Amino acid sequence: MTSRFIAALLAAAAAPLAAQAPAPPPPVAVDPAVAALRDDAAANDHYAWDITEGLTTEVGQRLAGTEAEARARAWSVAKLRAMGFTNVRVDGFPVTTPVRGAESAEILAPFPQKLVVNGLGGSGFTGPEGVTGEVIGFDSVDSLRLAPDEAVRGKIVFIDHRMAPTQDGSGYGQFGAPRRAGPTVASLKGALALVIRSIGTDRDRMPHVGVMEFQGGARPIPVGALSVPDAEQVERILKRGQPVTMRLRIQGQRVTGVSGNVIAELTGRDPALAPVLVACHLDSWDLGTGAIDDAAGCGIVAAAAKRIMDRGRPLRTIRIVWFGAEEIGLFGGVDYQKRYGTQPHHAIAESDFGADRIWRVNSKLGPARREEAKRLAAALAPLGILTGSFDAAEGSDIGAMIAAGVPAVGLSQDGTRYFDLHHTANDTLDKVDPVQLRQNVAAWTTLLAVLAGPVKRPLGKSRRRR
Amino acid sequence: MTSRFIAALLAAAAAPLAAQAPAPPPPVAVDPAVAALRDDAAANDHYAWDITEGLTTEVGQRLAGTEAEARARAWSVAKLRAMGFTNVRVDGFPVTTPVRGAESAEILAPFPQKLVVNGLGGSGFTGPEGVTGEVIGFDSVDSLRLAPDEAVRGKIVFIDHRMAPTQDGSGYGQFGAPRRAGPTVASLKGALALVIRSIGTDRDRMPHVGVMEFQGGARPIPVGALSVPDAEQVERILKRGQPVTMRLRIQGQRVTGVSGNVIAELTGRDPALAPVLVACHLDSWDLGTGAIDDAAGCGIVAAAAKRIMDRGRPLRTIRIVWFGAEEIGLFGGVDYQKRYGTQPHHAIAESDFGADRIWRVNSKLGPARREEAKRLAAALAPLGILTGSFDAAEGSDIGAMIAAGVPAVGLSQDGTRYFDLHHTANDTLDKVDPVQLRQNVAAWTTLLAVLAGPVKRPLGKSRRRR
Repeated sequence: MTSRFIAALLAAAAAPLAAQAPAPPPPVAVDPAVAALRDDAAANDHYAWDITEGLTTEVGQRLAGTEAEARARAWSVAKLRAMGFTNVRVDGFPVTTPVRGAESAEILAPFPQKLVVNGLGGSGFTGPEGVTGEVIGFDSVDSLRLAPDEAVRGKIVFIDHRMAPTQDGSGYGQFGAPRRAGPTVASLKGALALVIRSIGTDRDRMPHVGVMEFQGGARPIPVGALSVPDAEQVERILKRGQPVTMRLRIQGQRVTGVSGNVIAELTGRDPALAPVLVACHLDSWDLGTGAIDDAAGCGIVAAAAKRIMDRGRPLRTIRIVWFGAEEIGLFGGVDYQKRYGTQPHHAIAESDFGADRIWRVNSKLGPARREEAKRLAAALAPLGILTGSFDAAEGSDIGAMIAAGVPAVGLSQDGTRYFDLHHTANDTLDKVDPVQLRQNVAAWTTLLAVLAGPVKRPLGKSRRRR
Repeated sequence: MTSRFIAALLAAAAAPLAAQAPAPPPPVAVDPAVAALRDDAAANDHYAWDITEGLTTEVGQRLAGTEAEARARAWSVAKLRAMGFTNVRVDGFPVTTPVRGAESAEILAPFPQKLVVNGLGGSGFTGPEGVTGEVIGFDSVDSLRLAPDEAVRGKIVFIDHRMAPTQDGSGYGQFGAPRRAGPTVASLKGALALVIRSIGTDRDRMPHVGVMEFQGGARPIPVGALSVPDAEQVERILKRGQPVTMRLRIQGQRVTGVSGNVIAELTGRDPALAPVLVACHLDSWDLGTGAIDDAAGCGIVAAAAKRIMDRGRPLRTIRIVWFGAEEIGLFGGVDYQKRYGTQPHHAIAESDFGADRIWRVNSKLGPARREEAKRLAAALAPLGILTGSFDAAEGSDIGAMIAAGVPAVGLSQDGTRYFDLHHTANDTLDKVDPVQLRQNVAAWTTLLAVLAGPVKRPLGKSRRRR
């Protein structure tokens, strides 16, 4: 999940819910065939785990534009074909990727010690000797903005903050300013470099990376994220009141490469109808194996489509898109929209917020399709999923298409521990809870069973069954 | 805490408790002055936090024999003097320390990816190019022992295991064999190198380091600890059944340096009496800031002595020892025993198992002092501390002196989460719970109040009070 996702997420989380009192699930009958698909997924799904385990084990990290992401695409094409999907293909596009080099940070005075740091995506790079300067600390980007330029010029700026975990992930928007706005503000004030407290809710010695960009003509400076314990250490050292000197080394290079979206379909009984698109992103940051961000999302949506396939053929085509290059700037979503954005889609939805249980369904199918949205909500309610807004949906790569008016659904995952792990080395398979993963698959299977229309077995297969 | 501590720990935990049914705390009257000291510490102590925070912030990691440990000694001497202790001094001794260089591990085939590794203390070193070989996996040291030499020769051995968290830390003994015995067994079988699953109970991408040695004439080979998620990744990759190639780089050097024990005293009213020694170790591993291992221990024992000092003067001298070079081989304990081991000690005790709450008191004061041991147990009971054995005690640096018959007490801390953090980069101040830390100080203050004898205010001070 990238930072740009946050606008849509906050819009979905805040405004519509505040505007209307929580309502009980609407009293709408649930199709027994939908309920059966849902309950079977909740009890028995293994497809999502297989994909999540396979992708994270056999490929590992999948930084956009690198040969690792290319291996992930090859793996995905083979996997989706083996699962029986059709029209499996890659839509390629060029990208420029920041590739990490040697990185380090250390306090030289008054208390010499090493700190744990990683460069942010979009940071300026230092040479092997790094940059050395006095540290000036701020508790927020706003405090930095208020500081006189001459106090900041030539110094290494440190920005602290406090990010609380939240179920809906809204803390990422509220507390993410040091990463998103900090670099530009620091650069325009003439800072030598910037280090921020990681945008994360854990207390582990692993920085949270992520993408950022210099805006308004700000020249690139080195920008690093300290792990939360290291940021707290810097805060304590600064409080001693003595001048603090830091050496920061953020080496790396921008590499031009190729990314791509992996697309696969389960063709509907009426291929002329607009498809239902379910998505995730295939790329990951380079530190972990991208299990919760977002191999699990790919596992969830493909598992749901496969479970429909196992029962037969839906009315509408189900299109799976595993987007490329999400992390470095939502480029997969941009490419898809450019190619297919004007074609009708019955609905679009993306899983990109981990693998913990889904607690809410939002939808934005339009006023004319309120009954369809209510049928979806009713079918999801037995999974413990409450009905949110009928006028909002969220998604990272698909955010621009939602904004452009494409009908969409948002299945909100519990984000309470998401930002303990997000964009860190700790994003690995062991963090995925198989039971909650199955609940996700059950919800997405329900989504497809409702939106893609009745599933019917082809005549030949139906006969063989007797 | 080092591995050698484990023998004493297991002896204390297993045999005596199994031999006798749990008994309620003995019905012994508690001196109101002792109770007051105890309860005041539990409610109000800040000395232990001040020391723990100061040492980890102003010094940070304190690898034995390095200039960082020397800075820690200077810090400690100044701190203990400022607190009012007397006879503050350093007993120095030479050590040889393994200093970490560049370290990395990566799977080259069949699924290329980087792994998170750190070298163990005592490992052989590679050149910058590392060593490359086929990986052969075992689920235990015993499995490795049973393997034919020709299956192991020239390969990189991987040893897995499963370590469960336990309150008394006994898992460290039961599951630590890959680190303690693995290197020798692998080397004698002709292995190119060894990587083990970290001896730890967490699922974080941070290896647990620790000391090891090659025995029985085994030649040094590179030995690395993989983080638990990385070890699980290797396990999954090996299960695919294809040949697995790994490159392992463990650079470093052995450096000759100086370590030392920092000693300070609160002189008793009768200096001719044998002192009560309370200890911790000042050095740490190099990855974290050694907060739970063992800055907190130093904070706890000095805080307890300072709280006695604040009330006056005990009958016996209280001697604080902050041992040096514990982690790399208990050398501080060896030096102390060599210098003072034949002098009488009324009791010795060491805090070196984190800062979580103390749940049990063991003691080994000898049959003639059973009433004293019971008085101690009774005074500790209100802190939720149960009475363990009267014939066992434990301690890392003081283990050899306990074995030699010096009277000793063991205050057992809850170790359930200790091996989540032990010897990792994650051993930082934020892992210390101030409330549990105060419970520790209360217990150690009680220990000193009982064992060092009645605390009395000097006549001068007493007069000023009126």
